[in-house]
Parts: sequence; C-alpha cells; structure tokens
Amino acid sequence: MPRISSRARSFPDSPIRKLAPLADAARMRGIHVHGLNIGQPDIPTPPEFLEALRGYDAKVLAYGRSEGEPELREAFADYYRQAGLTVAPGEIVVTAGGSEALLFAMQIVAEPGDEILCFEPFYTNYSAFARMSGVTLKALPTEAAEGFHLPAEAAIRAALTPRTKAILLCSPNNPTGTVLTAGELDLVARLAEEHGLFVIGDEVYREFVYEGRHTSVLAIPGLERRAILVDSVSKRYSACGARIGCLVSRHPDVVAAAIRFAQGRLCPPVAEQRAATAVARLGLGFFDPIREEYRRRRDAAFEGLQAIPGVHCLKPAGAFYLMAELPVSDAEAFSRWLLTDFQKDGETVMLAAGPGFYADGSGARGRSQARLAYVLEVPKLARAMACLAEAVEAYAAVRVV
Amino acid sequence: MPRISSRARSFPDSPIRKLAPLADAARMRGIHVHGLNIGQPDIPTPPEFLEALRGYDAKVLAYGRSEGEPELREAFADYYRQAGLTVAPGEIVVTAGGSEALLFAMQIVAEPGDEILCFEPFYTNYSAFARMSGVTLKALPTEAAEGFHLPAEAAIRAALTPRTKAILLCSPNNPTGTVLTAGELDLVARLAEEHGLFVIGDEVYREFVYEGRHTSVLAIPGLERRAILVDSVSKRYSACGARIGCLVSRHPDVVAAAIRFAQGRLCPPVAEQRAATAVARLGLGFFDPIREEYRRRRDAAFEGLQAIPGVHCLKPAGAFYLMAELPVSDAEAFSRWLLTDFQKDGETVMLAAGPGFYADGSGARGRSQARLAYVLEVPKLARAMACLAEAVEAYAAVRVV
Repeated sequence: MPRISSRARSFPDSPIRKLAPLADAARMRGIHVHGLNIGQPDIPTPPEFLEALRGYDAKVLAYGRSEGEPELREAFADYYRQAGLTVAPGEIVVTAGGSEALLFAMQIVAEPGDEILCFEPFYTNYSAFARMSGVTLKALPTEAAEGFHLPAEAAIRAALTPRTKAILLCSPNNPTGTVLTAGELDLVARLAEEHGLFVIGDEVYREFVYEGRHTSVLAIPGLERRAILVDSVSKRYSACGARIGCLVSRHPDVVAAAIRFAQGRLCPPVAEQRAATAVARLGLGFFDPIREEYRRRRDAAFEGLQAIPGVHCLKPAGAFYLMAELPVSDAEAFSRWLLTDFQKDGETVMLAAGPGFYADGSGARGRSQARLAYVLEVPKLARAMACLAEAVEAYAAVRVV
Repeated sequence: MPRISSRARSFPDSPIRKLAPLADAARMRGIHVHGLNIGQPDIPTPPEFLEALRGYDAKVLAYGRSEGEPELREAFADYYRQAGLTVAPGEIVVTAGGSEALLFAMQIVAEPGDEILCFEPFYTNYSAFARMSGVTLKALPTEAAEGFHLPAEAAIRAALTPRTKAILLCSPNNPTGTVLTAGELDLVARLAEEHGLFVIGDEVYREFVYEGRHTSVLAIPGLERRAILVDSVSKRYSACGARIGCLVSRHPDVVAAAIRFAQGRLCPPVAEQRAATAVARLGLGFFDPIREEYRRRRDAAFEGLQAIPGVHCLKPAGAFYLMAELPVSDAEAFSRWLLTDFQKDGETVMLAAGPGFYADGSGARGRSQARLAYVLEVPKLARAMACLAEAVEAYAAVRVV
C-alpha cells in the first residue's frame, strides 16, 4: 500500500468534529446530546433565503462567475456600506464559505515557509488552512485573566520575524468571544505599517456584539491596502450549509490574485448565491432581535457556568462562544466521558476540548479548557448547564475512585 | 502597499475564463458569442435535481457532515455499482466539485516539492491545484498524430524520479477527448506498483464515451489501494453550478486524510447534496439519450472543422472537447481577435487557446492549438463552425496585410 504524504498523515482532526461518532453512538442509545461543540445556530434561516433557494428557476444550473455573481457582490457592498465600510463590488470576491476565503488569504500573503502571526486560542481550522498552504502559524498566547485581549505591544513586536507576512485577527473571537478594541486594532495597524505586513481580519461574527462595539480591519486608518477581510453568511443568516462567504480587499493585487485562485475552482455554489443576495439586502436592522436572543443565551450560559464549582470563565462581549476553564485535568478525556459514560435524565453535553484551539495541540496549553457554543434556546441551555454541573461533580468522584 | 506572495503573483490566469471580459464587451456590442471555450453543457439539469433543490424543506440550513451526507454517499456507491465498480459509501468523500477532490488528492499523495506525473495537454486547473499544494506537475507530451494516447512505456519510465508520488490520468480526456484503453491503464498500474505510486483518475466525463468503452482506475487489478478517483456531478447531470463532486479510494489512510481535510472546510453545499442524491439514483440509462445528443454534436463539430482548410484534428472518442490545430501562428491572439475584431452576421466564436493546457504555458507548446467544447445544439454548432471557417480565412488576410 502506498504511503500518504506526511502533511496528510499529520493533518489534525477537527477538535470540534472528531467526537461526532461518539455523539452518534450516544444518540443511538437514546440519549439527547446538547451540541455545544459546534457553532451551528438553531435560529431559523431567514425565509427570504429559503424562498430564493426554492425559487431557483434556471433550466440549467450552470457555472457562475469565478469571482461571484455581480448581484451578490453588489448586495455585499451595500451591506458593508450600511455597516459603515466603503467597499466597491469589485473589491469583493465570493468564496465557498469563510473557509475558502481564509485559504486564499493565507496563500496570497505568504510563501510556503513564511509565518502568519495569530493569537491563541484561535479558531481551530486556521491550522488546517495553514498546513494546506505550507505556512507556519505562529501563535502568541492570550490569557483568560485578561479577557483574551491582545498581549502587550512588546510581546507582539518580539514575535515578528523577517518571515512574518501577516497578522491574523478574529474579532468577535472564536473561541473566546472577545471583541478587540479600536485601540488594539490601531496597535496592529501601526505594527503592520512598520513591518510591511498584511492584516487578515476574520469578522464572521461582526453582528454578534453585546458590549461595546465592533471595529473592522477595513475601518482602520493605515490598513487601507493592508487589510484583508474574511466574511461569511453562515452565522449572520444562520445559513452554515450554504457555503457562501467572501474575501474583501482594497489592494488591487490581492483581489486579482483571489480571482485567479477562484478561477481554479471555477465558482461558488450558484443557487445559494441568489439566496445570499436576498438576505444581504435585508439591512442591518434584521439582526437586532437575533442579537438580543444571543445576549439572553450568553447570559444564561454564563450564569449556568458561574454556578458550577471550579468552573471559571469571563463574560464574553461577542460571538457565541465561551472558553471555560473546567475543574478537570484533561478536558478532552472529560468530553469523551460525557458522551460515553454520562447522562442526566437521558441527556448529556458535547463540548470542544481546549487543546485543539492552541497551535501546539498536544495539550500543553488549554488542557483543562473547553469551548462552549451557546447556540441553543435558553431553556435548553439551562438544561445543558445543569447536565454539565452534575457531570463535573460525577467526574470528580469517578477520578477519585 | 504590501507585496503579495510570489505564488499568488505567478498564479496563472485561467485560459478558459480570462477572455470573459472581451466576450462581455462583444455581447455589449450586440454580437452573439458562441461559447465554445468552456465545458458548460446546455443540456437541461434533470428535473429531479431542480425539484429536490426547490423542495429543500429544512428550517435551518445547517452544516452537513464534512465527509458528505450519508444518503449521497450511499447513492454514489449505488451509481458506481451500476457502473461495475464496487465501492462502499465509507470509501467516498463528498467534495465541492471535482476541483476540491483534485486539491485534496494532490495534497494527500504528495509533499511540497514532490512530483506528480501527468500528460499534456491537460485540464488547465491541474496547474492551479498543484501550485496551491506546492507540488510540481511534470507533464509528458502526448501527440495529436497519436490521438493523444499515452507515450511509450520507456518515455513514461524515464520521467519517473524518486520524488514522483503519483500519476494523474484524465479519461475521457479534457481537453483532447481521448479515452484511454484498458491496456494503457494496465501499463500505468504496472509502473505504479513498481515505483510505489498512487494513480489519480479524473473521470468526470465517464459517461461521455462514443467509441470503445471507458475503463476506470478503480477497475484495474493492482490499483486496488493505489487508485484515487476524482468525480463530479457537474457534467453528467449538467449541474456545474452545484459544486458537488467526490473523491473515492479503497485506501483507508487516503479516505481518513480526505475527511480530515474536509473537516477543515466544514462541509460541501448541503441543499445541493440532496439534489445530487436524487439524480445519482436515476440509474445509468438516464444518460443514454444525452450520450446520443453529444455524439451528434461531436460529429457536427468534427465535420465542421474538417471542412476548414488548414484545420486539423482527430475525431475524439469521448468527453465533449476537441483539441484542434489551427492555421494561425498564435491561437491566443486569434482567440482575442475573434472577440474584438470579427463577426459574421452578428456572431462570433469564443475558444480556449492551446498554451494554457500545457505545463509550460508560454506558448512553446500548443501555440497554434485551441480547445473547442461542443456543448451547443447541432444547428448552433453548425453556425459556430461556419463563423470559425470565415474567421480563419479573414484572419489569414489580415495577417498578410
């Protein structure tokens, strides 16, 4: 049998998805699994989206434009205008989800062997795209005690090398929920200018802000040509399965390169682009009630966690995640045990263990942490938190025995 | 302004798509452009596909499984069973078109710096995926005079190096229409066994065979674990805009790695997977009338080309492309001229120039060739061929002046 490449052998399992078989087995045993592991909102996809999809009326589902359908690029530009960001349709390249935008961005800014600086814990799939691109993700730690805000300027400066080509930011953050301040973005802009770097801003949770306000990388003076925005309709419109995102840049070479990459894979899904066009035209007010719903969920999840002895976390300002410190020595083993050995009244909880959100991945960092996505209705979240409370207690007893 | 990476700067324009702005401009001038440049069938997408898409009834368009929906993997396995190939659903990973399957396959078999052997002219986007993977595509020439069949064994053997990790075949071939014989596949299998190689089979035109029969890489003894099949619903079901394909392998490490890569980008488009499931269950007979339609088109395109003085091509056995030798010194300049300076009764023709289908790309090879996709109805094809005949004559006169 021929041997697969070492990059394929060492490619990491998704910490968010790898326990899925255990969850399936638990469900087969009749247990209700509260899925807090994955950022899959339960909010209904807007009827405008589903109606546009169901109304797809072409006789031939033909290839679309590689850079995305003109109507969708215009609708996205309108949406950004409402969000206070001036972007031309020609500066927007439609991608297969934010995922593909991240892959393109990394390959556009960095040569194989180059470095991209990011801050851990980080969205686990950054590692996947960096590996596919031969790029080294250099991760500076952020600390729970500091609300996972950026490290001090000196620490960031010390981490930059001649091979650093970009700083990758995620705000509102997955997995921590932290929203970067305008001051933090100004600092990053200053360093980027000094060192000739790009700044990649993953802002797919832009609307999910409960305290303070969100600042986009596209809004920062000094980053006009340096900023590459990664965005997605998945979370905003609860349309994760559509696979529609975009890459936005005011740097003509970045856009031209993204379009060449896009030509390689022909086009994003066509029918979903029509649907995404319909929802991109809904305007920002559409999101207000959804934001309030998530604020209630955040409060419920946070209060539930606060009530569990030994669990620590800060109240996050945005996104729909909490990175919690659990009173266990190995959050991954605990997450497995939740699915294989625990139930409370026929229910259990599925978490994403912390180590997968750190560059090292071995568990040297984040070993007792887990990410919780508060994507369930408040009553369900309350039940999930009650489950978790009982599980933490039961697990301590098991460990003692 | 920061500088983009050299891999992004040197990333090739698609020879199939780069003339699109000129075609748009011609259409703005009221000229009808016969699009023979791109493999976009005009055959209606099966109603079963569109009805399933329009019937998408979930309230939340949620993430699907990274490896693809179980129903679609089963439907694909059924389809392969009917095609005489025994494949388990668990050996199939659903991808965003054949494009993504090619990207995954290259990264799974080869380390950055490794080589994949292929045969030119080849599907131009192989270069794109190889660049994204840091893999060197080593291309052995095939010759029009030999019907673009594989070179002699000695030539293939001489091209293999210690860094060669796979042989990439496309049959029925894009851009030549050549269908490899079982004997050719046996030769490749023997070399793969001797040298410990994978064989990647791009078979997205499997049903488009007009003479002889198609042999899959999955049907060749010796390739049981070495074969990686790349497939797509785009051409078979005229659903290019759906972005649904798959990677198939009986090598457990290949499948496991493909699923890890797939987890990185979360999932393929979900609603289209339901639609693809519906058409995958149509059975092979569904394709019989479509094959006959394409056979008529092939004959019309071939006869039209035969009638043009100085144009040479062989009658292809499969796919829906012809690689024609034109009586021009620079087929790319000719292709541009067709869109900017020519019309016959308000019509012109769009071609894909030859050099983009060769690894070198500079025009050292394929300079006077062009690929024609016979994806139009016979009367339209006849008009397109009449256009081309007049254009060839007019262009010769222009050049003389």
